[in-house]
Amino acid sequence: MDVQKDLPSTQSLQVGRVQNQNLVSKMDTLAVEEPLEIRLEFGPAEKRTRKSISITMRTPGFDFELAAGFLFTEGILRHRNQLLDVAFCGPSRNVVRLEIDPNTQFDLKILDRHFYTSSSCGVCGKTSIEALRIQKGALDEVEIQVSASVIHVLPDHLREAQSIFDSTGGLHASGLFDSHGKLLLLREDVGRHNALDKMIGHYFLNNQLPLRHSVLLVSGRASFELVQKASMAGIQVFAAVGAPSSLAVELAKETDMTLLGFVRNQNFNIYHGEKRISL
Amino acid sequence: MDVQKDLPSTQSLQVGRVQNQNLVSKMDTLAVEEPLEIRLEFGPAEKRTRKSISITMRTPGFDFELAAGFLFTEGILRHRNQLLDVAFCGPSRNVVRLEIDPNTQFDLKILDRHFYTSSSCGVCGKTSIEALRIQKGALDEVEIQVSASVIHVLPDHLREAQSIFDSTGGLHASGLFDSHGKLLLLREDVGRHNALDKMIGHYFLNNQLPLRHSVLLVSGRASFELVQKASMAGIQVFAAVGAPSSLAVELAKETDMTLLGFVRNQNFNIYHGEKRISL
Repeated sequence: MDVQKDLPSTQSLQVGRVQNQNLVSKMDTLAVEEPLEIRLEFGPAEKRTRKSISITMRTPGFDFELAAGFLFTEGILRHRNQLLDVAFCGPSRNVVRLEIDPNTQFDLKILDRHFYTSSSCGVCGKTSIEALRIQKGALDEVEIQVSASVIHVLPDHLREAQSIFDSTGGLHASGLFDSHGKLLLLREDVGRHNALDKMIGHYFLNNQLPLRHSVLLVSGRASFELVQKASMAGIQVFAAVGAPSSLAVELAKETDMTLLGFVRNQNFNIYHGEKRISL
Repeated sequence: MDVQKDLPSTQSLQVGRVQNQNLVSKMDTLAVEEPLEIRLEFGPAEKRTRKSISITMRTPGFDFELAAGFLFTEGILRHRNQLLDVAFCGPSRNVVRLEIDPNTQFDLKILDRHFYTSSSCGVCGKTSIEALRIQKGALDEVEIQVSASVIHVLPDHLREAQSIFDSTGGLHASGLFDSHGKLLLLREDVGRHNALDKMIGHYFLNNQLPLRHSVLLVSGRASFELVQKASMAGIQVFAAVGAPSSLAVELAKETDMTLLGFVRNQNFNIYHGEKRISL
């Protein structure tokens, strides 16, 4: 694997600040947003195929983890040993190429859920989750238990660790904690799905999936897509500072994941999986 | 055009609420999140083509506006009269079909920016904005002027109007205001790009684009994608409660759009276009 040299994650610039009708000039720090293109090289040795499969707007940093995590949470890669190499493609650092083992069978049609090309109206009646679910993640056989008092302190621990957030105020965070509330890994991005893909990609590249005995906290809301990605990584407890959506709750119930929302000010809501929370 | 009967935007359910180690049961209201598939019927009368071009996770409500706004801000449709009909496809209300005038020429390749299929590494050095920009929006010839005191009150006006947000706490909002701070239109969604597409789609369907003399306020951060969509609609002043990204600022400069961030607590930052703000 290449030595990874990411583009900078933040950028400084001069801005005008209006405070009570007065305009002053000051320096401000922005979260960098740049497109990352993910390209695959796959297929049998005698007939390799190269294909660009995705462009995501992301904050540079941990780009290999982002690309690998995306491929894992989208169900394209299942095991670390399916991935032979990850490298930047060219000098721009906005294109990552992943070389897939020739023996790996995988189905790019999975990506069609992002970009349907069917022409009939036949799926109209299909339920939404059926159409969107990728596949079941690896569930841990051992249930974890987390104390409510641990849940209460997670947002403070996340904020303390968010060094980039402090300077730009513009990034989403995903934090992974152990069941005692110790932060194991933090990833940040302008896109919340990217922050989670970077985190899961880290453990994928280190061959440490599924995630056992750990609790995920995201800085914003819990969407269907985030719960889907977390379930692929085997996460049992998903906590969000914001609100969950209806489909996030539905998927948590279907996968029996503990889903907590509005985790702030010593309170939180349990949308599913009360059994893993001890009071 | 069909009479539009959207799915419900919110959903009630029983949740467990943990307050200082005590678990109580209460009713909670969730923002509904469901996939919306957008299908087109286009091409010459003797050889019509049907194609599904996008699936987005959205909060039901104003789905025709969302679909039309998406097609406009993505540069696929340019004028109201190119759109013959919009209708739900089947009973699920999660698929919208748009019938395009047979004389309309349009280029579905524009959508490739979401899903590249090129196989060479030739574009590596291409600058990001070039690769992502769709086309220039319709710029108004008359510059607007907005007082800083008007900008200060916009977030309060947005919050007052956010009826759904009040009940679920989980929705992004796009509010369009006149230059005196009067709210013209509010749209909300679990996806912030959807909230803006719904707003722009409203004006597209009513043949009222480009938007003149108006100010946009979004409840969250200003991303590249949002600034891109706003520029397609001719918006001159883009204000965000949160931070802008680096590429959002870059695009605002390129299109000469006034971009304001951190609009809260009687303060805001001007990232570009100070000339339209009077103190």
